[in-house]
Amino acid sequence: MRSQFNNQLEDLNIKLIKMGAMVQEIIEMALKALTTQDLELARKVPIFDDKIDELELEIEMECMKLLALQQPMAKDLRVVGTIMKIITDLERMGDHAVNISKETLKIGETKLIKPLIDIPRMAQLSEAMVRKSLDAFMKADIDLAFEVAKDDDAVDEIYERIYMELIEMMIQNPTIISQATNLLFIGRYLERISDHATNIGERVIYMVTGELQEIN
Amino acid sequence: MRSQFNNQLEDLNIKLIKMGAMVQEIIEMALKALTTQDLELARKVPIFDDKIDELELEIEMECMKLLALQQPMAKDLRVVGTIMKIITDLERMGDHAVNISKETLKIGETKLIKPLIDIPRMAQLSEAMVRKSLDAFMKADIDLAFEVAKDDDAVDEIYERIYMELIEMMIQNPTIISQATNLLFIGRYLERISDHATNIGERVIYMVTGELQEIN
Repeated sequence: MRSQFNNQLEDLNIKLIKMGAMVQEIIEMALKALTTQDLELARKVPIFDDKIDELELEIEMECMKLLALQQPMAKDLRVVGTIMKIITDLERMGDHAVNISKETLKIGETKLIKPLIDIPRMAQLSEAMVRKSLDAFMKADIDLAFEVAKDDDAVDEIYERIYMELIEMMIQNPTIISQATNLLFIGRYLERISDHATNIGERVIYMVTGELQEIN
Repeated sequence: MRSQFNNQLEDLNIKLIKMGAMVQEIIEMALKALTTQDLELARKVPIFDDKIDELELEIEMECMKLLALQQPMAKDLRVVGTIMKIITDLERMGDHAVNISKETLKIGETKLIKPLIDIPRMAQLSEAMVRKSLDAFMKADIDLAFEVAKDDDAVDEIYERIYMELIEMMIQNPTIISQATNLLFIGRYLERISDHATNIGERVIYMVTGELQEIN
C-alpha cells in the first residue's frame, strides 16, 4: 500500500515537472511574440494554454483519486495538497501568458514605443522562479523556497520602474498612451506570474514545516 | 459511513457560503474605500483578506481529510474537488479586492477625475455573480451556472467602455494619466473577479455533467 502511494506520487511529480516546463515555454512564447511582434505566434499562445489546462485537470483528478484510495495522513496529505495548490498557481501563470498575448495583439504592428529591455528581463526572472520553486518542492528545500521570495522582490522593483517610466512617457507624449497602457498591463501580468511562483514557495514551506507563512 | 460523509459535506457547504459572503463583503469594502476615498478603510482590506485566506486553508484541509477518510468515488469525488476549486477562485477574488485597495491608496486624496458610475456598477454585478455562482453550486443548477457567464459578458462590456473612455481622457488631458491608470487597473481587477465567478460556474457544470467546458 505504502509503496503504491510512493509510485503514484512519483508519477504525479513527473507530470508536475512537465506542467512546469510547459509554463516556462508559454511565458517564452508570449514574450517572443511580443518582442518580435509576431502576431501569428501570439495567437498560438491560448491554444498552448489549453494543453496546460488539460494537464492541470489530469493531475488534479489523480491527486483526488490518490487521496481517496490511499488515505494518506499528516505529511503525505500535505504533499498531495501542495501539488493541488501548485498546479493552480501554474495554471494561472498560463492564463497570464495568454493575457500578455492579448495585449500583444492589441499593440499589433504599431512600432514599439521603446526598446523592450526590462519586460524581457522580468520574464526571464519569472521563468527562473518557476523552475526554482518547483525545484524547492521536489527537494523539499526551504532555503530554495525563500530564495524565490527574494527573486520576487527583484521582479517587483523592475515593475515599479517600468510603471514610473511608462507613466512619464505618456505624460510627455499622449499619442503613445494606448500602447503604453498595453505594456503597463504586460508588466503587471509578469509581476503576477512571479507572485504565483512565490505562492508555490510558500506552499513548499508549509508542506515541510506545517506552518503557513507569507514569505513576501 | 455514508451519512457521515453527508454531514461533513454539509459542514463544508456552510463554510463555503460563509467564505462567499466574506468575499462579497470585501468587494464592497474595497469599492466603498475607493468611492468615498476612505484611506483608512482601504488599509483594512488586506487585514480582512487574511481572514478569507485562513478560512480557505481551513476548508481545504477539511476537504483533504474528507477525501482521505471517506474515500468518496465518482460524483462525490467531483463535489469535493469542486469545493477545492471554488475556494481558490474565491481566495483570488479577495486578492483582487486587496489590489483595488492598493490602487485606492495610490490615488490617495487627489480629487477623482470623474464621477465613478461604471466601476461601482461592475462591482455590483461581480458581487451578484459570486452569489449566483455559489447558488448554482448549492443547487447543482446548470442553468444558473450559465447565467453567470451571461453576466460576465455584461461586466466585460462595461470594462471595455471604461478602458476606451479612460484612454481618451488621458489623451485629452495628460495631467490625469496617473490616476486614470489606477482606475484602469481597478476596472481590470473587477473584470478578473467576474472571471473567477465564471470559473465557479464552469466548475459547477463539470460537477453536474462530468464535462469541462468553457462557458465564456
